[in-house]
Amino acid sequence: MSTQSIHDTAIVVDGLIIAKWGRDLFEDMRRGGITAANCTVSVWEDFQATVDNIVMVNGLLRDNADLVRPVRSTRDIVAAKEEGRTGILLGFQNAHAYEDQIGYVEIFKQLGVGIVQLCYNTQNLVGTGCYERDGGLSGFGREIVAEMNRVGVMCDLSHVGSKTSEEVILESKKPVCYSHCLPSGLKEHPRNKSDEELRFIAEHGGFIGVTMFTPFLKNGVNSTIDDYCEAIEYVMDIAGEDSVGIGTDFTQGQDAQFFEWLTHDKGYARRLTRFGEIINPKGIRTIGDFPNLTEALMRRGMSERVTRKVMGENWVRVLRDVWGE
Amino acid sequence: MSTQSIHDTAIVVDGLIIAKWGRDLFEDMRRGGITAANCTVSVWEDFQATVDNIVMVNGLLRDNADLVRPVRSTRDIVAAKEEGRTGILLGFQNAHAYEDQIGYVEIFKQLGVGIVQLCYNTQNLVGTGCYERDGGLSGFGREIVAEMNRVGVMCDLSHVGSKTSEEVILESKKPVCYSHCLPSGLKEHPRNKSDEELRFIAEHGGFIGVTMFTPFLKNGVNSTIDDYCEAIEYVMDIAGEDSVGIGTDFTQGQDAQFFEWLTHDKGYARRLTRFGEIINPKGIRTIGDFPNLTEALMRRGMSERVTRKVMGENWVRVLRDVWGE
Repeated sequence: MSTQSIHDTAIVVDGLIIAKWGRDLFEDMRRGGITAANCTVSVWEDFQATVDNIVMVNGLLRDNADLVRPVRSTRDIVAAKEEGRTGILLGFQNAHAYEDQIGYVEIFKQLGVGIVQLCYNTQNLVGTGCYERDGGLSGFGREIVAEMNRVGVMCDLSHVGSKTSEEVILESKKPVCYSHCLPSGLKEHPRNKSDEELRFIAEHGGFIGVTMFTPFLKNGVNSTIDDYCEAIEYVMDIAGEDSVGIGTDFTQGQDAQFFEWLTHDKGYARRLTRFGEIINPKGIRTIGDFPNLTEALMRRGMSERVTRKVMGENWVRVLRDVWGE
Repeated sequence: MSTQSIHDTAIVVDGLIIAKWGRDLFEDMRRGGITAANCTVSVWEDFQATVDNIVMVNGLLRDNADLVRPVRSTRDIVAAKEEGRTGILLGFQNAHAYEDQIGYVEIFKQLGVGIVQLCYNTQNLVGTGCYERDGGLSGFGREIVAEMNRVGVMCDLSHVGSKTSEEVILESKKPVCYSHCLPSGLKEHPRNKSDEELRFIAEHGGFIGVTMFTPFLKNGVNSTIDDYCEAIEYVMDIAGEDSVGIGTDFTQGQDAQFFEWLTHDKGYARRLTRFGEIINPKGIRTIGDFPNLTEALMRRGMSERVTRKVMGENWVRVLRDVWGE
């Protein structure tokens, strides 16, 4: 079977996309053969502004129903594959939209939000992000984690601080994840995870989606798809073939104003990072290039069986563990 | 079959309750043999305050799962009957919580809100209530009705003005209702509906739930369950046996402060009505007395077949027509 045929028949899941939602993106997702993607609908927004984002996505899903469909369960992911559409799973990169209400976990689950990163870079009511001193999971945070467990929302720790992450991993009764991270064994960066951190989450039943965001790859903007594959292989060596997947962090279509908002605390306060130009690795510049990733992994020696797991089957399994269906 | 046995085996639906939610109420609902009830979770509240009410109800449903269950479809009503629990269907008495966002119709539907009264007594963005001059359905109101049709939310017109009601009846592609009203043929009152209005909604496929709120019954606080039955029979004579049901308007457990809030525009502005003491008709003082209603209707000569329709089967059919399942 050609690598293109393998890609075409694989369940392909992208564990994190924060692109500009719209028909152009959905068309590129179809070109890339994406079965389902975790699409960010909240970072700095409060409760109601997040609902307004979901309203906007609901409209896009309806207007582009030939290309995309909502995902509420892993059955919906299987259905998306059968229909030749991309399943859109709603996620947050910050628990800020839960505000001070534990009950909003269930409210947003009912609106389709099945994966939530607990902190984005800085401190919130739940814990602390990876760009400042981290005092760990708060008392309220423990209640939020328990409610996410009960309701079936996956805890994402990618931008969460080390101490908060460790405490969430120990606290959660269901698998948690780094949906989009890279190993600091290949490049030191506040956003990258150490071998110990990767081992710790995997040993506790957790999951790791590997990102290709070039500022965090060792070759920076000169990185290629092989640098990305190397990082995937590095993480798999530590976590094992069942606990690794893809989480690109594609920001396709976003403008400078969006990155200014993203890189300041609360969207406007102090600057936290400065990425410079965002250039994705050569070979996977856009979501439409996803088939190249299957090709590159297999060219480097990964078996078809393991490639299928990494490209999506692992994500589906762990999401089913968390969601219950 | 005794009337008690008929009641026990009937699907019993209350088309409107605005009582104090809690275990006491749920226990009384079980005593009354209520299969499902439309429970008001918004009158003057804005979007987020309404969500907070739903959060509160979600918690109550969870804590009292031995007595009650959520209702999202008419299948859930059938399941409630089989389980011996009361199905709680969420409804609004005012479209105010939709604010200026058409997309919130779907958001609230996803949270379980399947029936929404378009106006409560006064003017809002959609139209005008029955306590002031009514200029009819607004342009935005037409878009809201179309969205409610699309998403599957029933339009309720009980507290809506005459002109807005007529225009909604003509505009809606799906059945609409007066969930809780009385005929002005028995007593003139701004909240009561004329024979022409009752005939008009029924002729256009709509539905009428009959209330027993004593300020609107001809014998006022001295009314008995027979006055209530007379009103049901009066409406059925006009609308036919398939378009009539129950909509008590039970306010059980609410305090004086609640009625102050309810009877002022926006919850605090000018006073619109003054009910005095709320005393339900003799024979059906609390929800637990519901079996007496089956008994009274049959004692007055209604057949078992028609009684079962009026007590709940009609509501289930019309809700299925609107919800699609």
